[in-house]
Amino acid sequence: MVLPCPPVGAVVVVFVSQRRSDGDHGYGEAAEAMEVLAARQPGYLGFVAARGTDGVGIAVSYWADDAAARAWRDEPEHARIREMGRTRWYDSYALAVAAVERSYDWQREPA
Amino acid sequence: MVLPCPPVGAVVVVFVSQRRSDGDHGYGEAAEAMEVLAARQPGYLGFVAARGTDGVGIAVSYWADDAAARAWRDEPEHARIREMGRTRWYDSYALAVAAVERSYDWQREPA
Repeated sequence: MVLPCPPVGAVVVVFVSQRRSDGDHGYGEAAEAMEVLAARQPGYLGFVAARGTDGVGIAVSYWADDAAARAWRDEPEHARIREMGRTRWYDSYALAVAAVERSYDWQREPA
Repeated sequence: MVLPCPPVGAVVVVFVSQRRSDGDHGYGEAAEAMEVLAARQPGYLGFVAARGTDGVGIAVSYWADDAAARAWRDEPEHARIREMGRTRWYDSYALAVAAVERSYDWQREPA
């Protein structure tokens, strides 16, 4: 997997969530569908997500500018799935939208 | 766990990494030590991390301002552990430092 390294001026959306512990309830399928849908949005730069065994997950999406991030927020199917998140999947979440000031990446040299 | 919701103007540091698949090599212990050390830094606002079974991890730290984020970057023990990350633990990583423009959080109402 190539990790996304956003350019200065890009917008990063950090979604941190605590899953409910009572089952999947269609979460896996919806998460995959959202990833595909996001990648089709104008200004999409990348996405990465991880969830540990404690149910805490972090999903980070990168956007060309704030307008692109807001358009994704307002996308109707995304809004519908977000509402399902509140009723079915999450105990809590926190979201931060932030403007990238600097970024770096590093990759191991091939042996 | 209470998820951190940073105020507008805070700085968020998003560290995305791909772990090597050849064992722990002291990673777990070092990660815990860094979490404790970060929490003692001036301007520390919070930290959250998750790693999935594919080895992709995301660690997000929140800082009062850019000076606090840079001071953490330059903290000597943190710099030493970062170097160990490159030699022992990671295949690749990407880091983004970004200024929070808006944030939200949500919590399920108690039943």
